Amino acid sequence: MPDHPDSRSPGPVVGMVGAGQLARMTYQASIALGIRFRVLAAEPGESAAQVCPDVQLGDYRNLDDLRTFAAGCDVVTFDHEHVPGPHLAALERAGVTLRPGPEALRFTQDKLAMRDRLTALGVACPRYAPAAGLDDVAAFAADSGWPVVLKAVSGGYDGRGVWVCGTPEQAAEVLAHGIAVMVEEHVEFARELAALVARSPHNQGAAYPVVQTVQGDGVCREVLAPAPHLPASLAREAERLALGLAGSLGVTGLLAVELFETPGGLLVNELAMRPHNSGHWTIEGARTSQFEQHLRAVLDLPLGAPDAVARQVVMANVFGADEPDVHSRYTHVMAADPGARVHMYGKTPRPGRKIGHVTVLPDTALGDDIDALRERAGRAARYLGEGKD
Amino acid sequence: MPDHPDSRSPGPVVGMVGAGQLARMTYQASIALGIRFRVLAAEPGESAAQVCPDVQLGDYRNLDDLRTFAAGCDVVTFDHEHVPGPHLAALERAGVTLRPGPEALRFTQDKLAMRDRLTALGVACPRYAPAAGLDDVAAFAADSGWPVVLKAVSGGYDGRGVWVCGTPEQAAEVLAHGIAVMVEEHVEFARELAALVARSPHNQGAAYPVVQTVQGDGVCREVLAPAPHLPASLAREAERLALGLAGSLGVTGLLAVELFETPGGLLVNELAMRPHNSGHWTIEGARTSQFEQHLRAVLDLPLGAPDAVARQVVMANVFGADEPDVHSRYTHVMAADPGARVHMYGKTPRPGRKIGHVTVLPDTALGDDIDALRERAGRAARYLGEGKD
Repeated sequence: MPDHPDSRSPGPVVGMVGAGQLARMTYQASIALGIRFRVLAAEPGESAAQVCPDVQLGDYRNLDDLRTFAAGCDVVTFDHEHVPGPHLAALERAGVTLRPGPEALRFTQDKLAMRDRLTALGVACPRYAPAAGLDDVAAFAADSGWPVVLKAVSGGYDGRGVWVCGTPEQAAEVLAHGIAVMVEEHVEFARELAALVARSPHNQGAAYPVVQTVQGDGVCREVLAPAPHLPASLAREAERLALGLAGSLGVTGLLAVELFETPGGLLVNELAMRPHNSGHWTIEGARTSQFEQHLRAVLDLPLGAPDAVARQVVMANVFGADEPDVHSRYTHVMAADPGARVHMYGKTPRPGRKIGHVTVLPDTALGDDIDALRERAGRAARYLGEGKD
Repeated sequence: MPDHPDSRSPGPVVGMVGAGQLARMTYQASIALGIRFRVLAAEPGESAAQVCPDVQLGDYRNLDDLRTFAAGCDVVTFDHEHVPGPHLAALERAGVTLRPGPEALRFTQDKLAMRDRLTALGVACPRYAPAAGLDDVAAFAADSGWPVVLKAVSGGYDGRGVWVCGTPEQAAEVLAHGIAVMVEEHVEFARELAALVARSPHNQGAAYPVVQTVQGDGVCREVLAPAPHLPASLAREAERLALGLAGSLGVTGLLAVELFETPGGLLVNELAMRPHNSGHWTIEGARTSQFEQHLRAVLDLPLGAPDAVARQVVMANVFGADEPDVHSRYTHVMAADPGARVHMYGKTPRPGRKIGHVTVLPDTALGDDIDALRERAGRAARYLGEGKD
């Protein structure tokens, strides 16, 4: 379709670099607000590029593509953290409004810089050290014990960025990839939590209820919102920590703080400065979805109410399997649970690929305790992904 | 953007004739389900055509345009009831799947046929008669008294289709337009209600809670969901009436039944077989929005749970004024009420034009009684439309 900007309602254009499911769901939120939204996609078949009419094809690693894209936008924001730092700095020098900006994004792109900064801010993290070679890893492990966690400082290798190594031999294998890594203690945590907040340029903040994330094979499988049985003091601590970090790091937009809950307190695991898988439950489960909240924040509009609309919400991710025909499974899933909220990302299913999610809220007929909700969300997600119960 | 159907997930294509706000909001719902959606728009700047990448430009009154459009769709449905009946019949004969079909749509296109059919089904309506001329109107009024209501049997004149006439002279003015009209008694109703249901081809039905609609200047201004203080027996009667009508008339998709609540019981005022203004509250206020429900129904998927997620929900329409810059008003509206859910349609504001709506749910901080909710929704809608409190 030709683009007819003159026929649209006035208002700023938000550009999102990256066209995955986060951009897709942010686009959905932009429609309700009548906000013009543009994505930079590598291919027309990408998740957000399928549904948004205003797509620029290009490479986020190419400064010219980024410049062209930014020229059509009032604000540029991000679906991922992979735009090279020097490109971000060049765009900012050229007067492009980046939200979040390079100074903040740096801490999602360089994990060692993130750990150093958090430590300087007095924020508790796992013990860590740079690891130039096996000697550094061995020296660290002599103190912390095996296993240790090796992390790519930036990006990763073969789609992975975190390796739990039980022996020097396993660590040597990771180091053989030749990428910059750091070493961290293997934290014995009770569970993983996530604190999601938004911060706008004029320094308004809003915190969503703290959630529990349930991982499997190193990937988030389920989100329980709020985190069941989390002491109120710990929930407040996590919210304040995330709001404080958003301010200290100068984040504009969303900040997701992944946390370990340990007997000794909360430790920060990872940061993300964009809509986050741990916040998908907010589409139906909170008064303002994380996607609308991100748009409000990057546009410096007043933030929406972040509170939950139900006592307990559960989100389960849908992972692909060999059989690609997801649509034929809708009948079964929708008949089995008329209240399950299905979100599919338009991605070609492949084994292990995240292709959608399901959210469930309490339902008088189907039960509203956490186990019943997890059972409902899990069954629907499994059936959508694998075609079996 | 070029269209790359091969890169998309499999599944049917739903085509919607018409590209107003109903198509826009239906498109939003289609994204979550990963359903491919196409609109037939008259202009690229229309509400749904702005946001949906798959637009065919054409005229819904032109059979060739309809044929071309239908050729790319698995199911064709409607944003309005204005497609000529003979065109619908021709499409159906050619094997196009129309939902709802011409046999059902006929009763939204010909109000006299609707009244006759409802009467034959034993459904209570206002008294009515065909009106070929002023003599018929005068004869009817001799029995029912003045004022009477004249209605265009089909379509209308100058954007209107209903005229309350207090005198023969006023009736003569309407008749002078030369369009086919019918005459109805002017019902003294306590209030107006709407019952919204969905029916799928395999005959599953689902009923939303019955709502109260508040009109002003002949246009819906507010929707209160559920209708406050409606006796449960009357709510059940309205739901059953609407579900029964959906079956009797062979509706596939949504059916909205506009009702008068009178001391003598419920009377059917109008029917619509599409998403309806009285159901916009379901986006945040019900477990399944009317837009997703319509998609499920026309695709013969199991229907979603229609129950409300809050005790009381209020929706207020936003009407345009002289000043077109709606976006600049977001700051005020969002700061004043962080829980108000804003939906703008991308339409150029003109005085009296419906350009969006606002939905509010109970909020612990801002109060949750019906008056507080109406105040919140009304203020936000007024400010968005007129730029003043």
